[in-house]
Amino acid sequence: MMQDKKYLLIPGPTPIPPRVAEAMSRPIIGHRSAEFQAVMERVTGKLKKVFQTENHVFIQGSSGTGALEAAVANLVNPGDKVLALSCGKFGERFAELARIYGGEVDFVDFGWGYDIDLDVVKKKLDADPDIKVVLATQNETSTGVQNDIEGLGKLVARYDAVLAVDAVSGLAAIDLKTDEWHVDVVVSGSQKALMLPPGLAFISVSDKAWRKIEQNTSPKYYFDLLKARKSIAKWNTAYTTPVSMVYGLEAALDMILEEGLDNVFARHKLLAKATRAAVQGLGLELLAPDECASQAVTAVQSPMVVDADTLRKVLLRDYGVAFAGGQDIMKGKIFRIAHMGYADKMDVIIAIAALEMALGKCGYKAELGAGVREAQMVFVGGEHA
Amino acid sequence: MMQDKKYLLIPGPTPIPPRVAEAMSRPIIGHRSAEFQAVMERVTGKLKKVFQTENHVFIQGSSGTGALEAAVANLVNPGDKVLALSCGKFGERFAELARIYGGEVDFVDFGWGYDIDLDVVKKKLDADPDIKVVLATQNETSTGVQNDIEGLGKLVARYDAVLAVDAVSGLAAIDLKTDEWHVDVVVSGSQKALMLPPGLAFISVSDKAWRKIEQNTSPKYYFDLLKARKSIAKWNTAYTTPVSMVYGLEAALDMILEEGLDNVFARHKLLAKATRAAVQGLGLELLAPDECASQAVTAVQSPMVVDADTLRKVLLRDYGVAFAGGQDIMKGKIFRIAHMGYADKMDVIIAIAALEMALGKCGYKAELGAGVREAQMVFVGGEHA
Repeated sequence: MMQDKKYLLIPGPTPIPPRVAEAMSRPIIGHRSAEFQAVMERVTGKLKKVFQTENHVFIQGSSGTGALEAAVANLVNPGDKVLALSCGKFGERFAELARIYGGEVDFVDFGWGYDIDLDVVKKKLDADPDIKVVLATQNETSTGVQNDIEGLGKLVARYDAVLAVDAVSGLAAIDLKTDEWHVDVVVSGSQKALMLPPGLAFISVSDKAWRKIEQNTSPKYYFDLLKARKSIAKWNTAYTTPVSMVYGLEAALDMILEEGLDNVFARHKLLAKATRAAVQGLGLELLAPDECASQAVTAVQSPMVVDADTLRKVLLRDYGVAFAGGQDIMKGKIFRIAHMGYADKMDVIIAIAALEMALGKCGYKAELGAGVREAQMVFVGGEHA
Repeated sequence: MMQDKKYLLIPGPTPIPPRVAEAMSRPIIGHRSAEFQAVMERVTGKLKKVFQTENHVFIQGSSGTGALEAAVANLVNPGDKVLALSCGKFGERFAELARIYGGEVDFVDFGWGYDIDLDVVKKKLDADPDIKVVLATQNETSTGVQNDIEGLGKLVARYDAVLAVDAVSGLAAIDLKTDEWHVDVVVSGSQKALMLPPGLAFISVSDKAWRKIEQNTSPKYYFDLLKARKSIAKWNTAYTTPVSMVYGLEAALDMILEEGLDNVFARHKLLAKATRAAVQGLGLELLAPDECASQAVTAVQSPMVVDADTLRKVLLRDYGVAFAGGQDIMKGKIFRIAHMGYADKMDVIIAIAALEMALGKCGYKAELGAGVREAQMVFVGGEHA
């Protein structure tokens, strides 16, 4: 008997489109060759379009966390006042990095399941003109919350502080107009909406941020953005680049640009809407309210009678469907369904149909098909709209 | 007309065996899944065999330089005395890293084309018992020199200092008995003799090194080895691992272990011997003397009448053959032929045959076939021996 197929519905790493896999399997070439420099020039141009920026965008061989560290190690000097806006695990990580690099961190915790309150940010910035860096998360993967980066960017732009945004799991799923919204530093990773395996990270840097970076004294080498800027002037990288991943990146960026950025965002929004409707149709509660619910990942509160991690085991064992669990304080309490990157309507249908069957096995009575129907209604409406 | 095929003969990145490429194209799974933990446990066990160690060996998503930085950022405290033994570009890089992390660096330059003199090292260690860390390069890729790590390891073991060895381009090409030779920290990378694309790096850590690491205060996060140790206890990684690369790594390690480490080293040695004989048969001079010539890459002095970089352009344009050039002070003066990783006898034949033809086009009269014949004689002898 054929084993069940596997369905990876976690918020990274995400499934790889065949076109990207094909590109990655091309023969290796030297990373210092003229041929590869031409690739870097082309890919960087496409990456800038997806980052919606004319700023420098660098490609780095690391996870997204490595690029968060690059942002902090280059921006934060010991003693610098840092305003860290946190809505969950990845907001906490950004703040921890700033502490490690000697920042004097004002940690503002909006709570798991809530978004950043811009009024609070404005008061903080008004009260302390000495704040040098503001750290925020675009899409808080741990809670399925997305923040208003447009509002935040336009607010921080009025102050001396530099704004760095963790867009690791949100870029190419949720709109982020880097230049128009004045976001100084945007960090992203390969294995989320960019549809690549883990291993590459990206970072964009504005002129305002460069002025801060040029005065930075923290020890760094691999993550040194001044070195990266010097190298990219010749379409090179300071250190050996994951060549195959860059091939894959070009294919993924081509797919995104051919679909059109606005269509990509609309697709994610539609999948998120269908997922939320379906889950609520089963009588389950979402973690994040509609106003700040993520387009990339939906966090669902497990019913009282069902341990979220047991549910996930059943889903994987009986249907080959992988959801993510809750992290840290949310462990066992929530599960998370991703709809980011190489995802379409049928992925939502799979997620919900499997969820309905698994809930029943775990002792929660969900009407079979009731969630699927809610999702279908969103899709039919969405297609006709 | 068919374009010429391409032959990548540079010291990294190196060609990928089909078996490794196949493994890397498997579907992505979650990096926190039980399935992937099982992969990590298995792969780490195989990696330890290739490192010839019972120490921890960590897998990190970065280039080799990122793992050199991990070694330094975890071992060197500001003010620590560091003895940096350099034979070329990568020795200089290791020393630069130590300076960036506040080390008080005694930089001992043995010169480009020469190896480490153990008598000098002994005198230095005897003269200053306060030396905390010794940095050395196993295979100096920039000059084609390999160092006596056995002698160095056994020497440094008698002192308090911790020995960290850059084996980025040498591991799995040149013998390195980590435990038997008392090498505390060994750093390597994926894109050299390990036959993978760039993107992974590796680092092994001895008990003696852990005692130093546990007292380290340098700022670090992505490269924090204490965090890595905590994660690997559950066969996890602190941050998202390049999942596809780890699949490929297992395939490459399987190939190496099936061939047998000693056979792998003997193959590299034979290819190096044939390359050197062939080059000398054409009347060209090697950069490194026989006693310390690298098994992984051969550096050749370009004839007076031929600019090395022009020669390389002709090789690539007319024969699809890529050699590496000289770096920094050796630019234009040498070219480098790699025979590391997925390389066999016919790769040497290709390199030499193309070289003979290209030299003629550049105005240096080499007897066609003379170098190839020297290589063949080594192979015939080697096979009969």
